Amino acid sequence: MFTAWTTGDIHGIGPEIILKSFQKINKSYCKPLVVGSAEALCFYQKNLNMNIGIEVFDSFDAIENMQEQDTALPVLSVAEPSRPVTPGIISEDAGRIAMKAIREAGRLCMEGKVRAMVTAPIHKEAISKAGYRNTGHTDYLAGLCGVKDPTMLFYDPLSSLAIALATIHVPLKRVPGLIQSLDLEGFLRKLCQSLRKDFLVPRPRIAVLGLNPHASDGGVMGEEEETTLKPCIRKLAESENIEGPFPADGFFGAGWYHGYDAVVAMYHDQGLLPFKVLAFETGINVTLGLPIVRTSPGHGTSFDIAGMGSASPKSFTEAAMLAEMIADNRKRVTSSQ
Amino acid sequence: MFTAWTTGDIHGIGPEIILKSFQKINKSYCKPLVVGSAEALCFYQKNLNMNIGIEVFDSFDAIENMQEQDTALPVLSVAEPSRPVTPGIISEDAGRIAMKAIREAGRLCMEGKVRAMVTAPIHKEAISKAGYRNTGHTDYLAGLCGVKDPTMLFYDPLSSLAIALATIHVPLKRVPGLIQSLDLEGFLRKLCQSLRKDFLVPRPRIAVLGLNPHASDGGVMGEEEETTLKPCIRKLAESENIEGPFPADGFFGAGWYHGYDAVVAMYHDQGLLPFKVLAFETGINVTLGLPIVRTSPGHGTSFDIAGMGSASPKSFTEAAMLAEMIADNRKRVTSSQ
Repeated sequence: MFTAWTTGDIHGIGPEIILKSFQKINKSYCKPLVVGSAEALCFYQKNLNMNIGIEVFDSFDAIENMQEQDTALPVLSVAEPSRPVTPGIISEDAGRIAMKAIREAGRLCMEGKVRAMVTAPIHKEAISKAGYRNTGHTDYLAGLCGVKDPTMLFYDPLSSLAIALATIHVPLKRVPGLIQSLDLEGFLRKLCQSLRKDFLVPRPRIAVLGLNPHASDGGVMGEEEETTLKPCIRKLAESENIEGPFPADGFFGAGWYHGYDAVVAMYHDQGLLPFKVLAFETGINVTLGLPIVRTSPGHGTSFDIAGMGSASPKSFTEAAMLAEMIADNRKRVTSSQ
Repeated sequence: MFTAWTTGDIHGIGPEIILKSFQKINKSYCKPLVVGSAEALCFYQKNLNMNIGIEVFDSFDAIENMQEQDTALPVLSVAEPSRPVTPGIISEDAGRIAMKAIREAGRLCMEGKVRAMVTAPIHKEAISKAGYRNTGHTDYLAGLCGVKDPTMLFYDPLSSLAIALATIHVPLKRVPGLIQSLDLEGFLRKLCQSLRKDFLVPRPRIAVLGLNPHASDGGVMGEEEETTLKPCIRKLAESENIEGPFPADGFFGAGWYHGYDAVVAMYHDQGLLPFKVLAFETGINVTLGLPIVRTSPGHGTSFDIAGMGSASPKSFTEAAMLAEMIADNRKRVTSSQ
């Protein structure tokens, strides 16, 4: 069965890391189907002089008849640029194609036609220019799947560091209010379930970070630890293996994260700052809590090096491998039930 | 001339890292005078079986008559515990002694009797128990020196990474308001001056981080980058070498900090999370903008390992060396003016 790889913003490094990952992966374990712009993929393949055969399709049914022994990379063309491909440029065209690819890949996942999706990075400004209000993969796919609050998990397969975000792409000033109003208990319970189902960790060890500096030092700097985090953690600790709130700086500095299967950060930079320092090249983004399997590289579009051939495919390749693993794990859990 | 080393919380690792640092430092370059509890210092010296002579004084004048060839470590006893020393315990006694030591060392600096001060870590709860409202070194010393807004700089001598904090020990929910109301331009100008005077960097390269995730991605998540940070940076860039606002996660992940003399973080965890990951053992805290020179190790009291002999003196030793360097640099700048 195929796994859909979306081309992302075609003016970023997406098509390049897809081509490089295709060269590297074990094709007997992972069968990618690129979804997005065939023209862009061919542009980078020629431009970077890569020896990869590309076979273009305009419907999924035609791809299913592809010969088993065919070594070409199949591409499902869902939208093509109206102008020449220009690496490094923010464009409405690239934003539109990126979102169409995500929608099509998501649909194929929902219909059970592909086993998972791996998404190359998109650019929020380009998406916004193309008229989309939901400018992130996570929110868009949640809407497509009819799921209210999926979880963004950043995972590093090398160190097994996993960081889940309690709040995502919101202005910092909204974070303290959101932490008090969100269903933190439900969020943490769902995280435990996902780690059991997707990562086969029978009793996940969870660490929760404090919101305030030094986790408020006993209430000296902020009150959310006492009013919200501690009561919730105490209650959950009766049935789950969960601890906190920890002062975030010391927690990462002292390497305490090694003792946990997942760390819960209260906001974007609190999770992503240590994650990107510790796992810049290999870090992966996984969306938990969706009926479909979706992973992506942890980095962005890297417009500054797009089209130059120097982009590292490491993170995308790891994301592709993880997607296969999660799809396998879910199948195993389902068939054993 | 002596440099004052304060004992910090005597139930933490302060006295131990002072003793270990004294063994390691080059005594012809650095002449430490411990300020704080002599009893506590002797307790750890005996307990950890360290071969160091300690000479106790109860006034500064008596120390000045200490023989040049004397190899003992002089201690100015400013307060002593009323109960036996108990490593790892939060106590009012330890909080009181810690603050008395800071006040005395600060006074000696202000009077020009010592050239700098290096402070072992204190514990905010112990300080609070002892009845002090200012529970941090920085604020307390600012008050003592009559300075309104000193700057907290975290510095790693190994990598030269330097991170200055625009806001310090405040609840996260107060940060966005503070960023809009503080005199950011004045803060950045003073930072440049300090880097010139204390670190002898003639034209410091400064990077400013964004407040919001992805530095708001062009206003998509938060407005402070557009309304406050960008106008201020643009104005300062006319006379100083300053850039930003940068998305914090990518900035550290991609190692861009290597290109700058100092990075300005908007709040505690944004600066301290990457700093502690990158420089856990050697990181130093420096207070800029005071008339006196003050450094301290980047770590806390480490109550969990206090009295066990396993504490690393690396950060304290580096802090002591940096204090001497800054004192030298200031003298050089003053004498060349």
